[in-house]
Amino acid sequence: MREFHPPRRILLGPGPSDADPRVLTALSAQLIGHLDPEFLKVMDDIQTSLRSVFQTQNRLTIPISGTGSAGMEAAFVNLIEPGDTVAVCVNGVFGERMADIVTRCGGVLLRIDAEWGQSFDPGAIRKALKVLKTVPAKILAVVHAETSTGVLTPLSMIREVLSDFPDTLLLVDCVTSLGGHAVGIDAHRVDFAYSGTQKCLSCPPGLSPITVSPRAVEALRKRKEKVRSWYLDLSMVEKYWGDDRTYHHTAPISMNYALREALRLIEEEGLEKRWDRHRRNHLAFVAGIEAMGLEMLVKSENRLWSLNTVRIPEGVSDAKVRASLLQEFGIEIGGGLGPLKGKIWRVGLMGYSSHRNNVLLFLNALEQILCREGFRLKSGGAVDSAEKAYGACC
Amino acid sequence: MREFHPPRRILLGPGPSDADPRVLTALSAQLIGHLDPEFLKVMDDIQTSLRSVFQTQNRLTIPISGTGSAGMEAAFVNLIEPGDTVAVCVNGVFGERMADIVTRCGGVLLRIDAEWGQSFDPGAIRKALKVLKTVPAKILAVVHAETSTGVLTPLSMIREVLSDFPDTLLLVDCVTSLGGHAVGIDAHRVDFAYSGTQKCLSCPPGLSPITVSPRAVEALRKRKEKVRSWYLDLSMVEKYWGDDRTYHHTAPISMNYALREALRLIEEEGLEKRWDRHRRNHLAFVAGIEAMGLEMLVKSENRLWSLNTVRIPEGVSDAKVRASLLQEFGIEIGGGLGPLKGKIWRVGLMGYSSHRNNVLLFLNALEQILCREGFRLKSGGAVDSAEKAYGACC
Repeated sequence: MREFHPPRRILLGPGPSDADPRVLTALSAQLIGHLDPEFLKVMDDIQTSLRSVFQTQNRLTIPISGTGSAGMEAAFVNLIEPGDTVAVCVNGVFGERMADIVTRCGGVLLRIDAEWGQSFDPGAIRKALKVLKTVPAKILAVVHAETSTGVLTPLSMIREVLSDFPDTLLLVDCVTSLGGHAVGIDAHRVDFAYSGTQKCLSCPPGLSPITVSPRAVEALRKRKEKVRSWYLDLSMVEKYWGDDRTYHHTAPISMNYALREALRLIEEEGLEKRWDRHRRNHLAFVAGIEAMGLEMLVKSENRLWSLNTVRIPEGVSDAKVRASLLQEFGIEIGGGLGPLKGKIWRVGLMGYSSHRNNVLLFLNALEQILCREGFRLKSGGAVDSAEKAYGACC
Repeated sequence: MREFHPPRRILLGPGPSDADPRVLTALSAQLIGHLDPEFLKVMDDIQTSLRSVFQTQNRLTIPISGTGSAGMEAAFVNLIEPGDTVAVCVNGVFGERMADIVTRCGGVLLRIDAEWGQSFDPGAIRKALKVLKTVPAKILAVVHAETSTGVLTPLSMIREVLSDFPDTLLLVDCVTSLGGHAVGIDAHRVDFAYSGTQKCLSCPPGLSPITVSPRAVEALRKRKEKVRSWYLDLSMVEKYWGDDRTYHHTAPISMNYALREALRLIEEEGLEKRWDRHRRNHLAFVAGIEAMGLEMLVKSENRLWSLNTVRIPEGVSDAKVRASLLQEFGIEIGGGLGPLKGKIWRVGLMGYSSHRNNVLLFLNALEQILCREGFRLKSGGAVDSAEKAYGACC
């Protein structure tokens, strides 16, 4: 084997996003032990800073030692006991994944479907939950930012629906929103949320930040049987991250160094400024896309700023365009999944990757490729339109 | 938060071991996507090289996206269906953990205990397995290298016992042996083995290499119900690592860069030379320890080379000695766990940390501290005795 040198890339896919060079430097620091007093301080810093990004006071706010999907599994495997009813809102791949995990955990699944590319009608959720006459659903699970479609589901709407179901816990997937959109865990009284490091936090993949409300912690304590997963059992994991510092499993040291640095960068930028950066780059992106005569999949009020889905125009080869972007420009974007395969492109503008230069480079590259492929563009002014959205004057 | 600068350490605990600087450099390389053609090549390299370290031809040989305990859980959660009988050999913390996981997976546990600090009597294992009259145990699980005690259990002995139980799958924990001892997966017909990256592979913690025999893969295919864990379900994970390249979860990119470089270092050193280095440093360590008048916990034929357990002499404070080692010398070692708490020190000589200089530095430091604490040493010649074991002439 030769030494590996990764090719030059701009990561505008559904994640990972580009990591800030400072995060990569932090990754490469010398190892110390997972029970070293200095590492315990790193863990404290991470917990404090994660609370701020999640906008919560929840004591139990930690990174799970796995990627975002491990965080999803941690949520369900800890909260569900066999026979519990769990309502899952499904409007994309990650809602489907939740539904799959519920049944693996022995839960009784109540599916609430919406079309891929759309959000949910509050009336439909309320109606579905009302089907349960005697015992309400233990959990309502929803994906805040559906990475497979680019749809944002407003948590204020979900909380409003749940005012009729006060005993139901609210479980939220924030994988593609945390750090790019406000998540307002406490404001929306979310009981369990999980995310991933490789999206708007711009840290390499490998950890899944979670936060658990006191009410959900209480539900965990009341469990009658052991959590089916040893690795993700929060009753033990929290003892390592809490005051006890009891060894559970060896924490991924380097990844925690990286997460700490990524959180430090967010602290420096400021959360609200960061959300606004994501919003502005998204709006400029849309302006450029529409100037070309292309269409966004999602209607404007439900669009994620972090993950933009563009309809592939008729007659244009998905694979060819993505290969050209990668090979000629070093730009990675994602294709569609499931029913949207071949129908959309997924363009992530997350964390470090959410930058004016990337928006302009991408729009230019796409315009060049589509033009060469013979697609008749509405205008050649994608970059100009984006620049106008940024407020540029010439 | 300030920038984090880890303190200077020599990691001689039960893991993580020190990472080779080349591995840390690999960690900090720029990210590429988990479906990037260049990353798929990294995955191929890792699989090929892991097969060589595991000494196997098993096609399904991959790193799981979690630490060693995630590998342990992957083994059981994939192989067990509710009601299956699983025999677990328990002689330390990691055998206990296996037993715990078996019941969480719905397995029926058959415990085979041995004293902590000792290996197993083959007759006792045979006798225990014979208790099952009609259906043999589906799995016999054993810890090759028990990190909590420093005991090596010979896999040749286990395979010999299993000659009477041809239908029982052999599951082996190689967390603290892989890369430091021969594991001989194919030679001993091991059906499922898992390890961790942060021990003798000297890569940061965060991945768990596993290998699965064709016979065990067949058992996975015959499952009647879905694997209880979505994250660790090998029927899906293997499609990402195999020819399909189907997206499952986002692989921890940077950790895979690091693992590839750690495996490249092993390739360069040569497996047998590497085992021999671990053996020589272990023997010199023991020579030094015994010269001081201290005792090893484990009898010589069952001692791990990678993890050395030393009895704490009467009247000596465990905590004080470990604190002095850390604060004055920057040396981390581990304390005892469970019934061995306060009774032993665990000194890891793994991977990059298994080095003559570390053996000599540690022996000198321990001698200084014990002398200051008033412990009457047999001789002051720990370093000299170790040097003699290395064949030094003066």
